[in-house]
Amino acid sequence: MSKGDLTRQRIVAAAAPIFNRNGFEGASIQALMEATGLGKGGIYRHFDSKEELASEAFRYALALSVKTRTGDLAHIEGAIAKLEYIVARFVKAPSPMPGGCPLMNTAIDSDDGNPILRALARDGIADWRLRLSKIVQAGIRTGEIRKGIQPRQIANTMIATLEGALMISRLEGTKKPLHDARASLDTLFATLRS
Amino acid sequence: MSKGDLTRQRIVAAAAPIFNRNGFEGASIQALMEATGLGKGGIYRHFDSKEELASEAFRYALALSVKTRTGDLAHIEGAIAKLEYIVARFVKAPSPMPGGCPLMNTAIDSDDGNPILRALARDGIADWRLRLSKIVQAGIRTGEIRKGIQPRQIANTMIATLEGALMISRLEGTKKPLHDARASLDTLFATLRS
Repeated sequence: MSKGDLTRQRIVAAAAPIFNRNGFEGASIQALMEATGLGKGGIYRHFDSKEELASEAFRYALALSVKTRTGDLAHIEGAIAKLEYIVARFVKAPSPMPGGCPLMNTAIDSDDGNPILRALARDGIADWRLRLSKIVQAGIRTGEIRKGIQPRQIANTMIATLEGALMISRLEGTKKPLHDARASLDTLFATLRS
Repeated sequence: MSKGDLTRQRIVAAAAPIFNRNGFEGASIQALMEATGLGKGGIYRHFDSKEELASEAFRYALALSVKTRTGDLAHIEGAIAKLEYIVARFVKAPSPMPGGCPLMNTAIDSDDGNPILRALARDGIADWRLRLSKIVQAGIRTGEIRKGIQPRQIANTMIATLEGALMISRLEGTKKPLHDARASLDTLFATLRS
């Protein structure tokens, strides 16, 4: 990695929490300068625009979240046990990034705004849904999960419930909504068995 | 209602979609002037601060949402039928306010920001949870719902799942996540029966 690439990486890592907490418009150049320890020129020597920096920051934050949330599933036997593990892990560590889940923040922030960030959030949700759907599909193939269960429905419900519970948890400063979501999802998973 | 009160009401109604779409910081005086047809002085003759206007706008948006979502439950027999009705209604009309659910928007927007708006969003979630919990409690009292079911868990799960599904639906421009959430919540409700 060249020195320029290293600096670029360092700027992205420092900028990610700023964008995650404050949104695209709300991330001030002042806050970005303080977080990176660089001047405006120093930052924008490495990025064409605020949009490019925000996009890289989102990709970085999302990759960190996915890594934290997904973990290693190889040692878990069975589709339903995998789904339960994913939910338990999310409840334990919903986001490694200050400011909450970058997917939800960017989805809400870009809702009526920035189309590039919106597309990145859309891709993030689609990837997550695909990973979860594949686990359900595998469970149907092995006969653990009933035929007729729609993998997409289960995946969408998991994402919606976890993200919604995280929103309430952060608002109220308690993990109760996340624990409640986990209990309800575990009940739902029990209904999937053949 | 005095002429001043009427004007104040008119400003709040016009400002509500601006704050709901753009957040507290993102709602520009320019946009507020265009929406109300008033100048800065005309607006702030009726409000002490942007915070006061934003608070009134949030209360207005939330009251509209609650009215749209809740509807008249008196004609619905049974606790589980009431819960199903509430979910169906949310899926059909998630928010009457441009920009999505004012609760979620304000929760995310105020997450690391404005404490007054944050408190209003917190109260909004608490009220919603109380309304739903009371329905579950009534179902337990009549014997329709099993003893041992935690009303708060069901209420938190409903709010989380619906709000999360709305977030994905708006991001993807399709109602599928909301329909998926409804199917999963109906499955969960079926497990509540005595």
